[in-house]
Amino acid sequence: MYFGADYYPEHWPEERWEQDARLMQEAGLNVIRMAEFAWTYMEPREGEFNFGWLDRAIALFGSYGIRSVLGTPTAAPPAWIMAAHPDAALVREDGVRVTYGSRRTYCPNHGEYRRHSARIVRAMAEHFAGNPNVIGWQIDNEFGGRCYCPTCQAAFQEWLKNRYGTLEALNEAWGTVFWSHIYTAWEQIPLPWSTTGIHNPGLALNYRRFMSDSYVDYQRQQLEIIRAADPGVPITHNLMGFGYPNLNYFDLAADLDWVSWDNYPRFMGQPDAARRALAHDTMRGLKGKPFWVMEEQAGPTGQNTVAMAPRPGEIPFWSWEAIAHGADGIVFFRWRTARFGGEEYWHGILDHHGIPGRRYNEVKEMGAVIRRLGDRLVGSAPRSQVAMLLSYDSRFALQNQPHNRYLDYPQAFMALYRGLRTLNAGIDIVSPSASLDGYSVVVAPMLYILEPQLAEKLTAYVRAGGTLVVTARSGVMDVDNTVVEDWLPGLLREVCGVTVQEYDSLDDGRSVPVEGSSVCSVPAGNATAWADVLALEGAEAMARFAGEYYAGKPTITRNRFGKGQAIYLATVPDEGLAESLASWLGRETGLSSPVPAEAGLEVLERVTQGGSYLFLLNNSARALSADIGKGGLEYVTENRLSGIISVPPMGVRIIAREE
Amino acid sequence: MYFGADYYPEHWPEERWEQDARLMQEAGLNVIRMAEFAWTYMEPREGEFNFGWLDRAIALFGSYGIRSVLGTPTAAPPAWIMAAHPDAALVREDGVRVTYGSRRTYCPNHGEYRRHSARIVRAMAEHFAGNPNVIGWQIDNEFGGRCYCPTCQAAFQEWLKNRYGTLEALNEAWGTVFWSHIYTAWEQIPLPWSTTGIHNPGLALNYRRFMSDSYVDYQRQQLEIIRAADPGVPITHNLMGFGYPNLNYFDLAADLDWVSWDNYPRFMGQPDAARRALAHDTMRGLKGKPFWVMEEQAGPTGQNTVAMAPRPGEIPFWSWEAIAHGADGIVFFRWRTARFGGEEYWHGILDHHGIPGRRYNEVKEMGAVIRRLGDRLVGSAPRSQVAMLLSYDSRFALQNQPHNRYLDYPQAFMALYRGLRTLNAGIDIVSPSASLDGYSVVVAPMLYILEPQLAEKLTAYVRAGGTLVVTARSGVMDVDNTVVEDWLPGLLREVCGVTVQEYDSLDDGRSVPVEGSSVCSVPAGNATAWADVLALEGAEAMARFAGEYYAGKPTITRNRFGKGQAIYLATVPDEGLAESLASWLGRETGLSSPVPAEAGLEVLERVTQGGSYLFLLNNSARALSADIGKGGLEYVTENRLSGIISVPPMGVRIIAREE
Amino acid sequence: MYFGADYYPEHWPEERWEQDARLMQEAGLNVIRMAEFAWTYMEPREGEFNFGWLDRAIALFGSYGIRSVLGTPTAAPPAWIMAAHPDAALVREDGVRVTYGSRRTYCPNHGEYRRHSARIVRAMAEHFAGNPNVIGWQIDNEFGGRCYCPTCQAAFQEWLKNRYGTLEALNEAWGTVFWSHIYTAWEQIPLPWSTTGIHNPGLALNYRRFMSDSYVDYQRQQLEIIRAADPGVPITHNLMGFGYPNLNYFDLAADLDWVSWDNYPRFMGQPDAARRALAHDTMRGLKGKPFWVMEEQAGPTGQNTVAMAPRPGEIPFWSWEAIAHGADGIVFFRWRTARFGGEEYWHGILDHHGIPGRRYNEVKEMGAVIRRLGDRLVGSAPRSQVAMLLSYDSRFALQNQPHNRYLDYPQAFMALYRGLRTLNAGIDIVSPSASLDGYSVVVAPMLYILEPQLAEKLTAYVRAGGTLVVTARSGVMDVDNTVVEDWLPGLLREVCGVTVQEYDSLDDGRSVPVEGSSVCSVPAGNATAWADVLALEGAEAMARFAGEYYAGKPTITRNRFGKGQAIYLATVPDEGLAESLASWLGRETGLSSPVPAEAGLEVLERVTQGGSYLFLLNNSARALSADIGKGGLEYVTENRLSGIISVPPMGVRIIAREE
Repeated sequence: MYFGADYYPEHWPEERWEQDARLMQEAGLNVIRMAEFAWTYMEPREGEFNFGWLDRAIALFGSYGIRSVLGTPTAAPPAWIMAAHPDAALVREDGVRVTYGSRRTYCPNHGEYRRHSARIVRAMAEHFAGNPNVIGWQIDNEFGGRCYCPTCQAAFQEWLKNRYGTLEALNEAWGTVFWSHIYTAWEQIPLPWSTTGIHNPGLALNYRRFMSDSYVDYQRQQLEIIRAADPGVPITHNLMGFGYPNLNYFDLAADLDWVSWDNYPRFMGQPDAARRALAHDTMRGLKGKPFWVMEEQAGPTGQNTVAMAPRPGEIPFWSWEAIAHGADGIVFFRWRTARFGGEEYWHGILDHHGIPGRRYNEVKEMGAVIRRLGDRLVGSAPRSQVAMLLSYDSRFALQNQPHNRYLDYPQAFMALYRGLRTLNAGIDIVSPSASLDGYSVVVAPMLYILEPQLAEKLTAYVRAGGTLVVTARSGVMDVDNTVVEDWLPGLLREVCGVTVQEYDSLDDGRSVPVEGSSVCSVPAGNATAWADVLALEGAEAMARFAGEYYAGKPTITRNRFGKGQAIYLATVPDEGLAESLASWLGRETGLSSPVPAEAGLEVLERVTQGGSYLFLLNNSARALSADIGKGGLEYVTENRLSGIISVPPMGVRIIAREE
Repeated sequence: MYFGADYYPEHWPEERWEQDARLMQEAGLNVIRMAEFAWTYMEPREGEFNFGWLDRAIALFGSYGIRSVLGTPTAAPPAWIMAAHPDAALVREDGVRVTYGSRRTYCPNHGEYRRHSARIVRAMAEHFAGNPNVIGWQIDNEFGGRCYCPTCQAAFQEWLKNRYGTLEALNEAWGTVFWSHIYTAWEQIPLPWSTTGIHNPGLALNYRRFMSDSYVDYQRQQLEIIRAADPGVPITHNLMGFGYPNLNYFDLAADLDWVSWDNYPRFMGQPDAARRALAHDTMRGLKGKPFWVMEEQAGPTGQNTVAMAPRPGEIPFWSWEAIAHGADGIVFFRWRTARFGGEEYWHGILDHHGIPGRRYNEVKEMGAVIRRLGDRLVGSAPRSQVAMLLSYDSRFALQNQPHNRYLDYPQAFMALYRGLRTLNAGIDIVSPSASLDGYSVVVAPMLYILEPQLAEKLTAYVRAGGTLVVTARSGVMDVDNTVVEDWLPGLLREVCGVTVQEYDSLDDGRSVPVEGSSVCSVPAGNATAWADVLALEGAEAMARFAGEYYAGKPTITRNRFGKGQAIYLATVPDEGLAESLASWLGRETGLSSPVPAEAGLEVLERVTQGGSYLFLLNNSARALSADIGKGGLEYVTENRLSGIISVPPMGVRIIAREE
Repeated sequence: MYFGADYYPEHWPEERWEQDARLMQEAGLNVIRMAEFAWTYMEPREGEFNFGWLDRAIALFGSYGIRSVLGTPTAAPPAWIMAAHPDAALVREDGVRVTYGSRRTYCPNHGEYRRHSARIVRAMAEHFAGNPNVIGWQIDNEFGGRCYCPTCQAAFQEWLKNRYGTLEALNEAWGTVFWSHIYTAWEQIPLPWSTTGIHNPGLALNYRRFMSDSYVDYQRQQLEIIRAADPGVPITHNLMGFGYPNLNYFDLAADLDWVSWDNYPRFMGQPDAARRALAHDTMRGLKGKPFWVMEEQAGPTGQNTVAMAPRPGEIPFWSWEAIAHGADGIVFFRWRTARFGGEEYWHGILDHHGIPGRRYNEVKEMGAVIRRLGDRLVGSAPRSQVAMLLSYDSRFALQNQPHNRYLDYPQAFMALYRGLRTLNAGIDIVSPSASLDGYSVVVAPMLYILEPQLAEKLTAYVRAGGTLVVTARSGVMDVDNTVVEDWLPGLLREVCGVTVQEYDSLDDGRSVPVEGSSVCSVPAGNATAWADVLALEGAEAMARFAGEYYAGKPTITRNRFGKGQAIYLATVPDEGLAESLASWLGRETGLSSPVPAEAGLEVLERVTQGGSYLFLLNNSARALSADIGKGGLEYVTENRLSGIISVPPMGVRIIAREE
């Protein structure tokens, strides 16, 4: 298992490197990520390359048993490139062509920028190809942003030509007859920004798809160059978890060899274990296999501000949590806090002065356990009984038309996840094109954009015996973001056995109490954000609204269909309602925790060949117990444990179980 | 009486039209508005016209007894025009030249845009002239916006030349000696935007007048073309009620044959009956005659968001309310919800799927009553005992200089209206140039900009026996937005018998208790937003401040003058104080409800030749009673009613009374 | 002593001037400030000068014993200049080139604007040189703003060349290796605005220094012209107190003959006596000598809004307070409220109508006391036992990197000042380069940017017996805004005897209780915004955190060093903690009030040759007492007072004491 740190040798005197290598080795680190953001340092003038320092760093750390992942430096363009190509700078949604001096300031569609990118990536890949200490590549850094420059406008028009073929098809698909937007030349099509009001939803959704595709395409250029020059060395990109809204991460991950992501639980606001869990499960789900945390928070974060310090024990807790959810690598950001630059307050394991302190000691203690346990886990997979479908198309479309302040795709997704997570049954986050075989329950929050093949797959899944959960705002739109000409939930009407007669947007933030029937525990909770007024067409009501003019109408229905059942949730549940529903689903479908545990204790299991590792994570302020039965060797305390055991606050227990 | 829907045949397959016509007919609809926003559909290329579809639609609906109002499509420019004239796009106050893709994206002063506008309007007017099913025209859609483009700057300089003649006169009128803004060439005069701080108040006010005039002028161009081509067919524009701040609606309405407006009670926040009432009274007041609601809310509104659904009964209630206030036409927006475009969530009577539901049924029930009653009401007028003066000049000037967060022209207007409305005495909203004959009470909130002829008219009104209510911030400015060189209320000092010694802006939101003398009921309420410290010069104090350093100073004064009296209100009243004042005014001047009614029941009367129709509207959650005396035929229940009757929550009663 | 008003003769008919002069004379006024903002009035066309009106005004008022301070008019450019040089207009941080029509719309580095400035200043200085009624000059008006135009970018690059010599030095100093920002040509260096995220801290800090220098340089041009033409007449600029964040006021004041500033206690929010006191002490500290209030609030302030009226008695109270803190001149803004222009609601002593009222009478009463007392005070100095170091470099740097919403240089400065002020011991605000001789206590809030020579001076001050107070976030950065490679507080580690082991940014607004040991009174108060976790290296703990994971760790330490002591405060104190600390400091170092007084009474003393004047200021709502011992003549009541005396609410007592 890789356990390491992000390291920037160019930020420190070369004399210091060896001391860092020794301190890393003592802490159990065995990998560093280097070179991202070092473009000008590596290529001060076009075609003039300077890789000697990096050769030396790779070799020195290698001699301490520390391997390297190399990042391509394209996230931060050199001043000499951007000065030569002023129109390569990104244009923000507010119309501002950005000034040089930060990062991600480039337009991903700009031809000259792509030419420069290709050159540096090719030079690096050729130079470092075959270096035995280089065990992976990372492309760019945290792709994201949207550009509204003329280059992008022209590229978007081309992209649309490829998608629609003719203007007639586009006008028809988007309904441009509304507000007289019928386009009679491709060049008339705008980017959706800075107008007097609102844009066509078809235009707006397709622009988001296009911008996502632009970064996927930009990444692909580098992938091809590296694969050609250094075949066999795996390539990743560091993504940003569940929360990042602007890229289709399934598309971005498809081209990569493995997924890694950047986990900063105390970046903003109080940490939230459910949010971290969802992020890990999402990242694992992108390729359906183990991932890395490429940047794990190692100190207070900070750019122009400084965030609250990680509390004692949090750094290893977060790292174990990642591993429990399927991480095969933990790389802390960063080894030592920079003394300069825009992130001089993004603290690493070491502070500015470079002397080990509390955080170093916490990492070192964890490193000792990793040494005993890590390699046994590599490649093992969490056992998941539930799948949740993540639809970026639906998410993009709802970004354009957020319905109300309280209705939000990720928030609704999170609400359902939060409820399900209390069951400790394991949750996979999967793409709409994923296979659903083997899942006891499939939850599909807000399939707002719903294509026929997905509707058919979900229907087949239920017919074959599965339990499907569908929510309000599903089946609303076709692939062009045009409302279906049918009762909602459209293509899911039959399997759900309900029709939406009308709906009520709870746009003032009110919630509506929901009363469960016998199937839901009491009190069931509240409906928030939205209420569908349903008519039953075969389904039975499991819970009903107890307020508003639709009091008595169903909030949750169950439709037995084929060998399975479809649950329709006519709202966004609050925490109580989400837990009631999850609890009912658990009883109904036999979802279960790997071992019985007190509420609040997170229990996860990574399955290996011939056994498994049980993770008990107590992210609360009081001790919590679990009954681990015959148990096994526990890796943190190095004891053999069995029966009812207690996990202290912020404590982690990892027990080897044999089949 | 016209009762109909806004209809966009171009949004639906032609096969569907007849089904829509039948459903409309069954619901009692007899008018549709069409063609607005269909420019590119009607003229895909310059001079190439396509009206056949509209001919067919007009004829088909006509055959079902449904007449047409045609809208000119200029609110939404074709892409081919805007691509040909990039500088015809409006420039927002933030300096952004807007991107194509919404509506109202044009500059109203742009010569080429006006040339294109004239062509399409002329083509339509000539083509549809004399069509017996076309019973009216609507120009453009919801005029509004402000443009800051170079074309507008040049037009503004011309407008100023016409107004002031010489730069010397302008410099003198505006006091440009302040901050060295003396202009030595017309070309130096800026538009009032994006500077380091504040602009000259004379400049700022005149720019708002100019921008209002620009739209009035733009509308006039179309009026002239239509009148020439299709004489005798009345022309309207759909305005936006009391709330729209940027156009002088008296000017806009002056050129029209009739006024219509767009009523969306659940567009934002909770519906407010007083706000709706004020909007209706204002729209009726623009021309002093019955109006239409051209867009009456028929479902949840929505562009990028979706608003709360109209509650059961609200749609007909709002429509009857409009009629009670003088509407002669109700046109619902829209017939069926669009499946595409930026307003795909602006719901019509039918949902996206086109199948009648709850809202259709509510409209249909109302349609049946309209069939019995409607035509009897047409042309009848509400009986009003009170006039309120609406000064757009004052409103524009206070937009530039809002004094504090709590002092606001429309809010102060509303506060007084809300108090007076509880009397059920009928209120006309009139222009400063209107005749005041016949009104028992004239209320003039914040005549901030006060011209001598208006001061003289108000003084004469009091002298002749009228009761005038004047408020703080009256008589402050001359017509150039320069402070008068006098004690306030300036030209109204004599009639009011008070002088403002100093004033206190309650800019922190505090309110000051007011204690009534014998004339005001106790507790009288609170002063908000502003406090004038008055000296009495002939007037008597009716209520006094009970706090701050001016405790004991008059808050409300009465000055007997000639045969009448002038009331001065030294603040903006809260609801309690406004009701106390209204109640006193009612007793003092004999204002009265058409029939005695429980508090909260709205009572209005439309007077016809030889009789009247009494409207009782219960916009509360409990039953309310009124004593209708000998009564008459009631149109909703079709019973003959008399004496004390009870109106259920959200209920409407309409009783024919004979003189 | 000068006691006067800002006067704009060009705003009023010349016939009115004499009446104003008489009213001023009767109120005891003896000075007016004129001519600022009158550029176009004085020079309607290039080189065509019109000074006759000003000659007449100076002479007329002179004949009433009223002298003149003349302002140069460059704060408000003429339209004819800005129309001729569109690129002389300032570019805001949001990228907008500002529109003409306000003030301060010019770029201070623009060559043509500087040429025009020089011409009008030279013409004025030459014309009015030697006029016996002209007793001073004021340059421009309230310098401030930041410009982001291409001229400024080029000037900044030049400024950097002068500062760093080579790009290598600059790249090294700023750490441009971070995010690949290494500059290979001076022209590549941007201004720090409108990018995708954050700028290099070295760039950002130096831009603020550069912009401050730009105004200092712009001012210097005018100073040199006036000094050459009218030697011996003192020159000032009207600054904006402690609160103005964007200029290094020590630099700006260094070139002036005397400092004046603009005091508007009721400009925004409730007045705050401590804030006013700090502003006065800061303005006095800029040159270490008496200052003027050049604009003293004389009525409600207002541009687009109108603020709350000064309460009765406030205007003279604020003026006496200024004098108590060292003002030698009080000039009210403005004599009469303008009837036009963007500040028509910035009220003067007289209202728009020009008739004396309450505020005039208050000024006149004060004028009578000034007549008896004023000249005795001129040149006398407040007696101060405490110095506070104001570091604009630290302030600028923290503007770029505010750490969190609750940590703010001026707010932290204010918190400490507010505590110390309760001692009535006199506080000087001094520059980092000032001598510390004679101060019992030196308080240095957040010396974030700390240069070695200042660290040495502070260390020497303690060694010699002084008491130094240092806070969290001191010694963090070198002069280039790069973090020191040491434990914090860096260069102050030794003198403070502590090291910062880690820190916790209280970015969610929480506060941490602090428990005092015997040295601090209980309850000591709370830590806010930030917490350093300290290790003692010689110091002793005086108070400790009582919460968070560092409960028990020191919050306040004292290190005896040489003959003195250094106090380290590991947080930003709330009011309770600041007062506890101040109270302990007072006892420990013998700080004392000039006379014993009840808490809440402000006591200040101005020391003259052979005696002093004691000021007792009661800014509370109840009477407060002091024991003035043998006492002396009191100037407000004209009594001889001694022993315990009571000062009424909003009352002032001024007692002559002989040594």
